[in-house]
Amino acid sequence: MAQKLTKRAEDYSKWYNELVVRADLAENSAVRGSMVIKPYGFAIWERMQGELDRMFKETGHENAYFPLFIPKSFFSKEASHVEGFAKECAVVTHYRLKNDEEGKGVVVDPEARLEEELIVRPTSETIIWDTYRNWVQSYRDLPLKINQWANVVRWEMRTRLFLRTAEFLWQEGHTAHATEKEAVEEAETMLKVYAEFVENFMAIPVVQGVKTASERFAGAVETYCIEAMMQDGKALQAGTSHFLGQNFAKAFDVKYASKEGKEEYVWATSWGVSTRLMGALVMTHSDDQGLVLPPNLAPYQVVIVPIYRGEEQLEQISAKVADLQKALRSKGIRVKYDNRDTHKPGWKFAEYELKGVPMRIAIGPRDLENNTVELARRDTLSKEVVAMDGIADLIQSRLEDIQSNLLKKANDFRAEHSYTADDYEDFKAKIEAGGFVYAHWDGTAETEEKIKGETKATIRCIPLDQKEESGKCIYSGKPSSGRVIFAKAY
Amino acid sequence: MAQKLTKRAEDYSKWYNELVVRADLAENSAVRGSMVIKPYGFAIWERMQGELDRMFKETGHENAYFPLFIPKSFFSKEASHVEGFAKECAVVTHYRLKNDEEGKGVVVDPEARLEEELIVRPTSETIIWDTYRNWVQSYRDLPLKINQWANVVRWEMRTRLFLRTAEFLWQEGHTAHATEKEAVEEAETMLKVYAEFVENFMAIPVVQGVKTASERFAGAVETYCIEAMMQDGKALQAGTSHFLGQNFAKAFDVKYASKEGKEEYVWATSWGVSTRLMGALVMTHSDDQGLVLPPNLAPYQVVIVPIYRGEEQLEQISAKVADLQKALRSKGIRVKYDNRDTHKPGWKFAEYELKGVPMRIAIGPRDLENNTVELARRDTLSKEVVAMDGIADLIQSRLEDIQSNLLKKANDFRAEHSYTADDYEDFKAKIEAGGFVYAHWDGTAETEEKIKGETKATIRCIPLDQKEESGKCIYSGKPSSGRVIFAKAY
Repeated sequence: MAQKLTKRAEDYSKWYNELVVRADLAENSAVRGSMVIKPYGFAIWERMQGELDRMFKETGHENAYFPLFIPKSFFSKEASHVEGFAKECAVVTHYRLKNDEEGKGVVVDPEARLEEELIVRPTSETIIWDTYRNWVQSYRDLPLKINQWANVVRWEMRTRLFLRTAEFLWQEGHTAHATEKEAVEEAETMLKVYAEFVENFMAIPVVQGVKTASERFAGAVETYCIEAMMQDGKALQAGTSHFLGQNFAKAFDVKYASKEGKEEYVWATSWGVSTRLMGALVMTHSDDQGLVLPPNLAPYQVVIVPIYRGEEQLEQISAKVADLQKALRSKGIRVKYDNRDTHKPGWKFAEYELKGVPMRIAIGPRDLENNTVELARRDTLSKEVVAMDGIADLIQSRLEDIQSNLLKKANDFRAEHSYTADDYEDFKAKIEAGGFVYAHWDGTAETEEKIKGETKATIRCIPLDQKEESGKCIYSGKPSSGRVIFAKAY
Repeated sequence: MAQKLTKRAEDYSKWYNELVVRADLAENSAVRGSMVIKPYGFAIWERMQGELDRMFKETGHENAYFPLFIPKSFFSKEASHVEGFAKECAVVTHYRLKNDEEGKGVVVDPEARLEEELIVRPTSETIIWDTYRNWVQSYRDLPLKINQWANVVRWEMRTRLFLRTAEFLWQEGHTAHATEKEAVEEAETMLKVYAEFVENFMAIPVVQGVKTASERFAGAVETYCIEAMMQDGKALQAGTSHFLGQNFAKAFDVKYASKEGKEEYVWATSWGVSTRLMGALVMTHSDDQGLVLPPNLAPYQVVIVPIYRGEEQLEQISAKVADLQKALRSKGIRVKYDNRDTHKPGWKFAEYELKGVPMRIAIGPRDLENNTVELARRDTLSKEVVAMDGIADLIQSRLEDIQSNLLKKANDFRAEHSYTADDYEDFKAKIEAGGFVYAHWDGTAETEEKIKGETKATIRCIPLDQKEESGKCIYSGKPSSGRVIFAKAY
């Protein structure tokens, strides 16, 4: 433990960057904008993947894999999609290198130019709908409910670990349906799956809503989203689910013969979450000591640190620990025993605090005498000495308590930083202070754009549970029938 | 079932291509050389991944993720590596498209040229060892045992689904060790993990061996491999594990301070298997009726097809099937009930035969009367009528029998097509007929090259269990101390 983390209050952004690196989650690579996800960070991502994959399969989806490269011309087929995606992207133009004639390593072989450039997928609607054309002939082939776990690339100029990187990992669901109703239901179902996952598994409360037209996914008819609040009061879009109408079906000519024998275009959805969720996780729960992990996501939920002098004491402790580990594992608790003699207990305590392990158990010679251990909770940083008897049950209930406490804390934080504003001056002050501001809006892209220009706040969403309420737009004074959520965002 | 598959005896290669597509494993995409892995094929790959991932973790490895793109200059750092990999590859030269001024869609923006081109990873040694430099300072940081599941790209001119595609999925393990001995042991351990997986899980027997110098991985000191025999007698390299010596540590300057405080270069291994295994799976077990899947890999191991007239009969059958499914699932057997009314039983039988489902259960009105079902095994195509009582146990034992029968069949096939040859004429005839030919070789790359030129046979490996035996090289007549395996290969 070389030096302390920058405090959140001092420099929130610096705190985040330091924490991600020092907690061994990820680091920048030699390739501009691309990160390396380190084993500890990847283990958390794997747990997210596992849970989401289970939820996708339970809702009737199958995994498949589509090409990394997309022919350039595919992007021109859906008019708004090309505007949104094909611009900032990695372009493959050649397929061979050769030895430099002047002996300076390898150079691109100009002879090996591709006839048509290939784009490294920024999202896969185009290549997938080009494929679906051959998979769908009749209503019997529908619905198609497919998900892909993949890497994608969007050439971002300003990148931040997990939050915005040129390459990132994600899943993208792409479904095809016979009716509009079924497709809309699918988009809504997947939004609910995401909300459930993020709240119950990541302990992050989210607002479910729809995007305004100007914040919609390029090519979507409706974009559903879940929005979370970070500890600096900014919003983070944690997942999106799009109802794509027949846009891609028309662009790629995907039709089916209905039961009545009529030819119809297929209806589509797509939905995705990414390694960005790792950023949301860090920024929702962590503190000035480091990462705080919800037990459901922690690679190990409990770490046991022995406090000893000499081999003999260590052996006695290790014998006790063996039983304890067995008892915990039999309850499905992930536990690690750190008996390394290369580091002192104090160093280990700080290390596991930094890494957000939900619960630490210390066991020393006095504990051996008294048949006790010391438990420390990462979320509250509180300690207690407890008897060994029945400890596995106690720890299990403590872990459940930590999981629900983190959600409650995040919920409380969000409640404390959610405001209403009825005039523009008040609105600006509240946006500046940070948080979600519920305000009336006249429904025009023009007003939205102006507010964004003046305050940097965007409309995060029109909440699905929006209450009917007449009011006046904070900017234009025109009538409005309900409040939308404004915030600055990641 | 439109038309029958091409028979293996007629055109083995055509049979393979048709089978992969018609069994819904994969298909060619719009991107030259890249395939789409379809849901059924991907479900098999997921089972492989799951099992391998478990084995990797049990042997102390962690997963991580490294960038897709590798700066071009990295490839020049390890001299033999660049020769082997950097030539036929996808090169990213630009990071932006723009609207064509003549309105013809989008074109590459010449302003957005990268200063240094990026290579889409063909394998990740270079970027990973560049990263390891910062991860390794002292002996305490070793060993590093990391695996990555990823997509890689090698620009192949002639591609075949699963066997050779421009983009493919794989895992690549990359480990760093303090000593040569430990690194060699790691490479050997992972070879054994692969052999165990391929034999016990995929039911494919393999020969474990080492490659000759000319067949080694570019940058390796020793390449271990497992070689399998396909039904046309050709060899398929099913996995490799490389001892890389200190080549990459030196190229990327990765040193550690030993316990004694000395600076030393780190020792390395890398090892991988890919979606190529899917090709091996198809070509080892399948027959003229279609795919044959080992129960351990089958997405569903048992399919139940009702044979009925009218709703009432279907209801009676479905009630029975519900109990049967429950009984099978309680034993962990993956079962699917296909009660679609859009297809006839005969169509379904052919479909599941084509898709290689290990066991089919048919149940009709007479079965209801007699409390029986008809079982059909995919491996032997045999049928039997059995009593419902105790059927879950019976099916479980049948599935185990199918798994071991497939391995035995493949073992017998390999034994029947493994030969020794002691003179060159005999050797050529046997190579031409197809199979593994155990023969003496003088140990020179020159002879190896000439034999390859004249017969298309390569040395698949020097078997790890090679017997000491004096003989004469079949080509040069020079002395040899043991036989190596020659074969034509995929």
